Amino acid sequence: MIEEIIGYLGGIFIMVSFIPQVIKSYKTKSVKDLSIWMIIATLVGTVFWIVYGVLINGKPIIIMNTIFGVIVSYQLFLKIKMSHL
Amino acid sequence: MIEEIIGYLGGIFIMVSFIPQVIKSYKTKSVKDLSIWMIIATLVGTVFWIVYGVLINGKPIIIMNTIFGVIVSYQLFLKIKMSHL
Repeated sequence: MIEEIIGYLGGIFIMVSFIPQVIKSYKTKSVKDLSIWMIIATLVGTVFWIVYGVLINGKPIIIMNTIFGVIVSYQLFLKIKMSHL
Repeated sequence: MIEEIIGYLGGIFIMVSFIPQVIKSYKTKSVKDLSIWMIIATLVGTVFWIVYGVLINGKPIIIMNTIFGVIVSYQLFLKIKMSHL
């Protein structure tokens, strides 16, 4: 049990890590130092985790990764949009 | 079994996502658009996953997350070092 909690905690930290990044990108309107491949690879990972959540019928995993996916998608949108300004 | 593979695939994508980011930061010597909190939160997540790997005695998890931890630590080093240039 404790190991599962620690495993999920790791996932949660990695997920929420994008929140300060999105806030910074939104505020500064500058994204040039961000690798688009980092954002895309993270988004692909999130999709895998949503599928994983569906397969094991884990609602919290599906919900959290969907929220995470939206945040990362928004970061990708900011990256693409601001790169063309 | 298939769900475990998909779960790990998600983790692998999220882990390798930092590789293009580190390469970009190293090449451009510019890190100002990166949130230091994104890097720190990711590093904390990695430490949790190493502990998880130790608890379930999962050598591949320990090895992969240690490599990932080194990459993220290097990104943190670049962020701190280049922010003061």
